[in-house]
Amino acid sequence: MPTIKDVAIRAGVTVTTVSRVLNNRGYISQSTREKVHRVMKEMHYQPNEIARSLTRKRSMMLGMIIPTIAHPFFGELTNYIENYASSLGYKLLICNSRMDKQKEKEYIDMLKSNRVDGVIMGSHTLDVEEYVKLKQPIVTFDRRIADIPYVSSDNYKGGVLAAELLLNKGCKKIAHICGNLSLDLLGNKRSEGFIETLRHRSMEPAVIELGTDVFEHSDYERVILKLLQEHPDVDGLFASSDIIAMNVIKVCSSLGIKIPEQLKLIGYDDIQFAALMNPSITTIRQPLEEMAKLAVDLIDRLAAAETVPLEHILPVTIVERETT
Amino acid sequence: MPTIKDVAIRAGVTVTTVSRVLNNRGYISQSTREKVHRVMKEMHYQPNEIARSLTRKRSMMLGMIIPTIAHPFFGELTNYIENYASSLGYKLLICNSRMDKQKEKEYIDMLKSNRVDGVIMGSHTLDVEEYVKLKQPIVTFDRRIADIPYVSSDNYKGGVLAAELLLNKGCKKIAHICGNLSLDLLGNKRSEGFIETLRHRSMEPAVIELGTDVFEHSDYERVILKLLQEHPDVDGLFASSDIIAMNVIKVCSSLGIKIPEQLKLIGYDDIQFAALMNPSITTIRQPLEEMAKLAVDLIDRLAAAETVPLEHILPVTIVERETT
Repeated sequence: MPTIKDVAIRAGVTVTTVSRVLNNRGYISQSTREKVHRVMKEMHYQPNEIARSLTRKRSMMLGMIIPTIAHPFFGELTNYIENYASSLGYKLLICNSRMDKQKEKEYIDMLKSNRVDGVIMGSHTLDVEEYVKLKQPIVTFDRRIADIPYVSSDNYKGGVLAAELLLNKGCKKIAHICGNLSLDLLGNKRSEGFIETLRHRSMEPAVIELGTDVFEHSDYERVILKLLQEHPDVDGLFASSDIIAMNVIKVCSSLGIKIPEQLKLIGYDDIQFAALMNPSITTIRQPLEEMAKLAVDLIDRLAAAETVPLEHILPVTIVERETT
Repeated sequence: MPTIKDVAIRAGVTVTTVSRVLNNRGYISQSTREKVHRVMKEMHYQPNEIARSLTRKRSMMLGMIIPTIAHPFFGELTNYIENYASSLGYKLLICNSRMDKQKEKEYIDMLKSNRVDGVIMGSHTLDVEEYVKLKQPIVTFDRRIADIPYVSSDNYKGGVLAAELLLNKGCKKIAHICGNLSLDLLGNKRSEGFIETLRHRSMEPAVIELGTDVFEHSDYERVILKLLQEHPDVDGLFASSDIIAMNVIKVCSSLGIKIPEQLKLIGYDDIQFAALMNPSITTIRQPLEEMAKLAVDLIDRLAAAETVPLEHILPVTIVERETT
C-alpha cells in the first residue's frame, strides 16, 4: 500500500504539495495538480480518510491577537503571517486586544468552539490559567505561558550586540530605555543581555523603564526628555524598539543633541521606518518573515495533532546605519 | 403596535442600542440592557421575527481587502475598522491582496456564499464587472466602482490646501509627486486640486507620477532623486502620501537640501509617523477614524438590507509642522 511519501517521490513533488492537492488547500498549479492525481491513480493510492476528514473539519481560520495593528511592528508581522497563512489556505482574523480584555476572551472562546483552528498571540491580558487549560493550538510571540509553544527572536543576543557596538564606538556613559521589566516578557532579555555585557566591562548603564500603559508617543517623549536632562553626559543609548529610538531622535533634535556625533543610538526590530528615518537607525534586526512563517507552521502542525517543540528562538543581526 | 423607534424613545436610547439588545450584539451595559427589556415588556413590543432571523443568519464576519497591512496608512485604518467593527459584534478577516488576484477573488466568493457579511475594499485588482454583478454589501475606500458605496477623504480639497500653503510660503518653483494618474482612483483628485490651484495662479508644477507597481522605498528614492536633479530650483513639493514625503526628506538629506529653508514639503494622510519624522511633516490629514467607522456602519446597514447613499466624502484639514 503506497504512502503519501511514495506518491510525492514518484510525482517529483514534496509531501506538502501532495497533501495540499488532497485537501484542496493552498495554491497548486493546474499541471502539478494533474500530475499528482495521475500518479495517485497509477499507484492506486488511497488517502487516509480519517486524516482527511479531520482536515475538512477545520474552519481554516486563524485568530491573531495583537496589542494594535497600527503599531508598525505588528503591522509588518501580521502582513507576513497573513501572506504565509493564506498560501496554506488559512484566512486570518485579527483582534486588537490592548484596550479590551473581553476581545481576547472571545478569540479563546472561538478556539474552544472550533470556529478558529488556532490562535497566534502577540499579546495577552487574560490570566495565564485561561490558556493553560486549553488543549487547542496556540502559539505566542515573545511570551512564555506554561506549555504553549512560542516564537521569539534571540533577545538576549540582541542586547549583547547592542552593548558591544556602543562599547566599540567608544561610548563612555551608556543608557537604556525599555519596557516594564517587572512583566514576564521574553523581550526583557534584550535588557538583560545589554546590561550584563556592560557590567562585564565594569559599566553600569542608566536604565529607564517605560510604564506598562505607555504606548503614546507623547509619553515616550516625556520619559526620554527626563533621561537626557538627568544624564546630560549620555553618549550611547539602546532603545528596546525602533519606535522608542525614533522618539529619541525627535527629542535629541529638540535639545540640539547631534546623532551620532554626541550620542550614538541603537533600536530593536528593524521595522521599515528604521531605514527611512533621518538619520537612519542602527538596529537589531528580528527575522520577522521567518518568525511569522514558523508561527503559522506550528499552528498548522498543532492543528494536525502533531507534537511540536516548545521553544523557537530565531537569530538576530545588527544592522548598522547612521545613528552609530 | 409599538415600533423599535417607540421603544428607543421611551427607554431614552438610540434605535441602534435597542437593535443591539434584541440581537445580542455589541457591548451594551447590563443596566441599559435591563432598561430596554423592561420598556419592551411595558410596551408589549414584538420584534420583527423575520428581521431578527435574517440578522441571526449573518456570519458576523467582515472581510477587509487592502494592498498590504504593513503599509502604515492601511495599518492605522484597519486598526480603527477592527476596533469599531468589534464593538458591533463583527470579527474582521484581513487580506493583503497586492501580490495576488486570486486572494481577492476568494473574499468575493466568501461574500457570495455568505461566509462573510460584507467586504471593505481598500484595493482592487479584479475586473470591475466582478463587483458590479454582486448584490451583497461592499464598501470601498477611495475607489468608485459602479454603484458600490465608497468612503473617501476630500482629496480635491486636500490638493487645494497644499497648493495654497506652498504659495503662501512664497514658493516659486513647485513640484508634485503622486501615484499613477491614469488609474481611476479618487486619490488622483489630490493632484487635480493641487495642479488646478497653481494654474489659477499661472504656475505649472513639475509632476512626477510613480509607476503602478512602485511600492518599494528604493523605487521612491530613485524617482525623487531624478526629480530633484532635473529640477534643482524646486522650492516647494507636495507628495501624495506621507510615505513619499518621508522618502523626500531622506533624499534631500543626502543631497544636502535643507527642509524647510530650501524646500518646503507637504505630505498626505497624517499617519502617526508624519509627526515623528525629523523634521516632522506638514500634511493633509484624513479623518481616518471617522472614515473607518463610516465604512463599517455602511456595511452594517447594507447587511440589514438598508439602502445607503453612494458617495461619502469626509473633510480634510492641513496640519502644519516643521517641513513648511
